[in-house]
Amino acid sequence: MISRDDCARRDAADALAPLRDQFMLPEGVIYVDGNSLGALPRATPARVADAVRQEWGDGLIRSWNDAGWITLPQRVGDRIGALVGAKPGECVAADSTSVNLFKVLSAASRIVKADSSARRVIVSERQNFPTDLYIAEGLCRDLGWTLELLEPPALIERLSGGRGGDVAIMMLTQVNYRTGALHDMASMTALAHAAGALTVWDLAHSAGALPVDLNGAGADFAIGCGYKFLNGGPGAPAFVWAHPRHAGRFWQPLSGWMGHAAPFTFRPHYEPAAGIARFLCGTPAVLSLTALECGVDTLRAADALGGMAAIRDKSIALTELFVALVDERCAPIGFACASPRDARVRGSQVSLTHASADGASHGYAIMQALIARGVIGDFRAGTAADAHGPALPDILRFGFTPLYLRFVDVFDAVDHLVQVMQREEYREARFNKRSAVT
Amino acid sequence: MISRDDCARRDAADALAPLRDQFMLPEGVIYVDGNSLGALPRATPARVADAVRQEWGDGLIRSWNDAGWITLPQRVGDRIGALVGAKPGECVAADSTSVNLFKVLSAASRIVKADSSARRVIVSERQNFPTDLYIAEGLCRDLGWTLELLEPPALIERLSGGRGGDVAIMMLTQVNYRTGALHDMASMTALAHAAGALTVWDLAHSAGALPVDLNGAGADFAIGCGYKFLNGGPGAPAFVWAHPRHAGRFWQPLSGWMGHAAPFTFRPHYEPAAGIARFLCGTPAVLSLTALECGVDTLRAADALGGMAAIRDKSIALTELFVALVDERCAPIGFACASPRDARVRGSQVSLTHASADGASHGYAIMQALIARGVIGDFRAGTAADAHGPALPDILRFGFTPLYLRFVDVFDAVDHLVQVMQREEYREARFNKRSAVT
Repeated sequence: MISRDDCARRDAADALAPLRDQFMLPEGVIYVDGNSLGALPRATPARVADAVRQEWGDGLIRSWNDAGWITLPQRVGDRIGALVGAKPGECVAADSTSVNLFKVLSAASRIVKADSSARRVIVSERQNFPTDLYIAEGLCRDLGWTLELLEPPALIERLSGGRGGDVAIMMLTQVNYRTGALHDMASMTALAHAAGALTVWDLAHSAGALPVDLNGAGADFAIGCGYKFLNGGPGAPAFVWAHPRHAGRFWQPLSGWMGHAAPFTFRPHYEPAAGIARFLCGTPAVLSLTALECGVDTLRAADALGGMAAIRDKSIALTELFVALVDERCAPIGFACASPRDARVRGSQVSLTHASADGASHGYAIMQALIARGVIGDFRAGTAADAHGPALPDILRFGFTPLYLRFVDVFDAVDHLVQVMQREEYREARFNKRSAVT
Repeated sequence: MISRDDCARRDAADALAPLRDQFMLPEGVIYVDGNSLGALPRATPARVADAVRQEWGDGLIRSWNDAGWITLPQRVGDRIGALVGAKPGECVAADSTSVNLFKVLSAASRIVKADSSARRVIVSERQNFPTDLYIAEGLCRDLGWTLELLEPPALIERLSGGRGGDVAIMMLTQVNYRTGALHDMASMTALAHAAGALTVWDLAHSAGALPVDLNGAGADFAIGCGYKFLNGGPGAPAFVWAHPRHAGRFWQPLSGWMGHAAPFTFRPHYEPAAGIARFLCGTPAVLSLTALECGVDTLRAADALGGMAAIRDKSIALTELFVALVDERCAPIGFACASPRDARVRGSQVSLTHASADGASHGYAIMQALIARGVIGDFRAGTAADAHGPALPDILRFGFTPLYLRFVDVFDAVDHLVQVMQREEYREARFNKRSAVT
């Protein structure tokens, strides 16, 4: 039996423990949803207030130069880039993940069309995050291409043994948003390249959660999210990276003025900037980028304590503890681990399914009851079987952010889950009323 | 001779004068660049701080429901819509102006392609804001269409007398960013429609500056900027409107999850939401949208004082005063009005050219010297003659935001300009060093 004291001892020995003080976490809350929206860094309110009052209020238009607003996308992009194996100048922060995905898929499709006319398929995972699928679906429709959705083993099969000759792009999210399953970027990239396809990686659930090495893997394009493990705040701008071998080769359709070689010459014709800057489009969202910069800095505070490798070690320790506690205390009451049991192929989250004795699905209400107790995770509804694969179950998601979660938090979260079930709190009507965002 | 006392008397009689207190303007600054970046509303710092500390920090992921983040694009869109002649539910705030332009041009092109195959030309103004031209240029390249850039008289000619049979879309910015020239939206829309073309209006310099009536004009699509006369802060999200007859008809290529009919069902296939919501793409930038909401509210405070009509009346009075003072005091020292002299066809800005006795162009340095005196306008470099038309001169831009500018400010701004010239301050080396953003 794992005790709370065991967990407290682990916290006492945790070199990353002091980083928790960088965040403002509400009293009585155990936040296991940093994979959806990262918590507020302590430095952010003052930094954003300064951007509002001094930079905007006092500096007004002058702050484009004086406060360096004009280079914020590059500055924040470089800081994020250092976390995901990009070199300085290879990454910019801008727009949303969805918009950036459109840019890189468009750019990749242009490279494919220029190199070969036979490839007209984008392959991806059926359980990829839907916005990725929607953007790819729309682009395929416009290009007359096909989006093929496969389960991971079938995807590997599809790209092996000469069967990938028609595949233009492999588009994958490195860590699955439902299960937390982690792709090996290097081997999947090599597989795609051997098949002659380009790779587009979505790092939404991996940037800031585990070591990523885009250049080491030889990836082609990547995008990622600013508001999850980068703690950039609700709807923070996303980021976009292109391997230098591609960055200057084509331009993408969102050819706005901030991607122009000389935006302030106001010339009537578009000339793309050199390198990754051509993946910028409109005027940067300064306030949101400022908050994102703070969020990324909280991660960089771990540099002196072992950096992303140390964060990954603690992340694995937290998820392993959670899995062990679930096995011990929650398996007997119907919960099962829906995430990989092998930590090496799991991101920084663990998802659970629940099978109730009465046969009904109580997952949503269980999560609401947990949230009412201050344990904030989230619920993702299952989907029916379709042409691409079998039905997916309802899941309860628990994300583990090593910067601010303690081992005792993991213990307490499981303890609350056990109590919710023992007291049947999930049967209360208030927990069964669906909200707009579930 | 117009005296400063005359101006002070006009301020004393100005019904909108109290609105100035809604803004935090730095001591000693006369801000005539609200057409580039609106000033900071007094309510914004506290409102943004609340969104950061309470909504994000304390509410965490729960704020998507509890603080209504999920409907922010619609809520802010409706408030903006009320200023531009849109009905509730017709307008959303999201992404950047450039990205939104791509959406509406794409949607318009799909309508055209479905209706007729003969139309393959987008017509616009040569002096339209470059990002609009860049986005249209990129789209035309992908579609195999042509972007034709004309001066306004030639544009009218092009759409008249049966010569517009190949024109798919007329894309115009209602108020020209260089000269402040104002198009009559109703008559230009009627002209385009008579030629069988759709209309895309960029309201960047008109939303919040003058009455706009999208439905009254029967326009097809519109976009606009949140950080100019809407005072939404640096890089604030933009807005997008589609006439209800088009909104549900096609979807646009940026088919992200927030434009899905049911984003939180996480279905693998895209089904566009009904109406304007399908023009949303990724997760909304909550902090920036919150600041934008405050900015729009400062405009709505004028509702009780006559609303947009009263704002327009004061705007005209301010620009007329500026033109009169320039004629009186600056014409003799080389300045000329580069904006329409007829206030009915002029937006809320006046641009000046300067011809120096030594033949050199001192426009940039003159504006820097003015800024050093606290009179903040901006400079836009001219361009050489090209295939589309003659050379454009360097200009000094002065934007007039009726919410916070006084008649004495106009007097003082001109007085400073005269002093900069009399003392030849523009010759100082520090004013001749170009910055990143000019």
